[in-house]
Amino acid sequence: MSNVGVIGGGSWATALVKILSNNVSNINWWMRSQETVDYINKYQHNPNYLSSVELLPEKVLVSTQIKEVISKSDILVLAVPAAFIEEALASINPTDLKDKILISAISGPCHAEEVALEKLSYLTISCQNEGNARHFASLMNCRYIKTSTSDDIYGTEYAAVLKNVFAIASGIAHGIGYGDNFLAVLISNAIQEIKRFVDTVHPVDRDIKSSAYLGDLLVTAYSQFSRNRSFGSMVGKGYSVKSAQLEMNMIAEGYYAVKCIYEINKKYQVNMPITDAVYRILYERISPRVEMKLLSDKLS
Amino acid sequence: MSNVGVIGGGSWATALVKILSNNVSNINWWMRSQETVDYINKYQHNPNYLSSVELLPEKVLVSTQIKEVISKSDILVLAVPAAFIEEALASINPTDLKDKILISAISGPCHAEEVALEKLSYLTISCQNEGNARHFASLMNCRYIKTSTSDDIYGTEYAAVLKNVFAIASGIAHGIGYGDNFLAVLISNAIQEIKRFVDTVHPVDRDIKSSAYLGDLLVTAYSQFSRNRSFGSMVGKGYSVKSAQLEMNMIAEGYYAVKCIYEINKKYQVNMPITDAVYRILYERISPRVEMKLLSDKLS
Repeated sequence: MSNVGVIGGGSWATALVKILSNNVSNINWWMRSQETVDYINKYQHNPNYLSSVELLPEKVLVSTQIKEVISKSDILVLAVPAAFIEEALASINPTDLKDKILISAISGPCHAEEVALEKLSYLTISCQNEGNARHFASLMNCRYIKTSTSDDIYGTEYAAVLKNVFAIASGIAHGIGYGDNFLAVLISNAIQEIKRFVDTVHPVDRDIKSSAYLGDLLVTAYSQFSRNRSFGSMVGKGYSVKSAQLEMNMIAEGYYAVKCIYEINKKYQVNMPITDAVYRILYERISPRVEMKLLSDKLS
Repeated sequence: MSNVGVIGGGSWATALVKILSNNVSNINWWMRSQETVDYINKYQHNPNYLSSVELLPEKVLVSTQIKEVISKSDILVLAVPAAFIEEALASINPTDLKDKILISAISGPCHAEEVALEKLSYLTISCQNEGNARHFASLMNCRYIKTSTSDDIYGTEYAAVLKNVFAIASGIAHGIGYGDNFLAVLISNAIQEIKRFVDTVHPVDRDIKSSAYLGDLLVTAYSQFSRNRSFGSMVGKGYSVKSAQLEMNMIAEGYYAVKCIYEINKKYQVNMPITDAVYRILYERISPRVEMKLLSDKLS
């Protein structure tokens, strides 16, 4: 079980390939663009993301053929933004995935950019089968990566999705001119909002203060590398959603995430004032300034 | 009950005087230095802290006479660093404080510097008497200050003290070269450490994710204004404790706090790996690099 497939060509996928290269000899890496594949084969670097990372050709086979990548791999890691998973897997049918171990939730706190710099980072591998989680964790452990495992796949996935929404919220607040004092209140309320949501959707015993939940939120909402925070900050400064998206070269996942969560929560009716505020700003064109003012009255 | 005494001449005391000036006409402000008192009386600004804040002479009486300040006030707010309270109150005897309302725990997340800029901030007023807490909260509320109240005086005080220790820890990590990924793990572990400690020392029902606990930790550990973080960062970069203290113009409260907590915890024996690490670095001259490496193996 040491042939690993990585699905996706973004910065997180590139970081995973780098980490796995320490312990795994056969990495099959799928990405959409043939041009990028050719570039990597020629120069051993991804031209678009983490371009400083050297990709070892003797260990990494890059390809645009998803069926080939899947058939060669025992373990598959999905590292495509949630909004594009359907498109990426469109040509796959269930039999292709028979006997494969699918890893979808690898939780931070972990900015890909710091993996490139080999800064010490902690990852949580979530899998319903604890043995599989431990096996994959052993493939990831290295000098700069420490891993833990969890069977809370719903909680870690939802928390990972929600953190992007709250990173947009903190960006918006920052863009408007709110300071660090307010940001700390916003994030404290955000982790409470995450807890309310995941405890409702998937009620198991979990400590939301663990790195996989709280840490992941902190690194995204506070870090200079966060795409979602940058996107929110532009919206807070008065850019339209469309022009903020055009200005940025990367996708702010929270833009899609907030719509998903908003829709899902119509069923659960969890009290989610921050999520609702971000949704209204991004999708109903309510003024960020007005919406944050209203939100600030609901926080404590 | 609208004569308020503020004890202390630092940045937080100055911020409190500014906030209270919105609702209170009689503020009696004690500080140690006659020179500073004279300066404030002449120029209406504190020369040492938050010097941009205008202090209204018709509302604020500044004095070095602590007995006079206390006798003129119904409510007394202690805004002296914990390490200096004993010295500040040395000449006071219990009868001086008869019938006075003493406010000691006003929890952030609230950097004084952002109060000076009138950035929206949230404060928690803790008092065993809930009515007194609410009364004082009403004196503090204004356009840029929102308040809540709590009766958890031990929990908020200990959390407020501990956050300074953890801010030093994050400074040390930053100074050594650890990145944002690690910082998020450190802070997630820190809030768990706070919870273990306060739940042991004073076991009441509290939500440690509230702004008064988690928010206060976040603003101190992440903010550019934090003295404790700056101090830690210098130590992490290789300054000796003494020379880091000499370089800084302000007192890093966490330096004293970590010793107090370390001593108190000899009785309770709570598992506090971060506190222990900071103590050993500051008081037992263990190399920050070695100690943080050992600590990193204990975090998850």
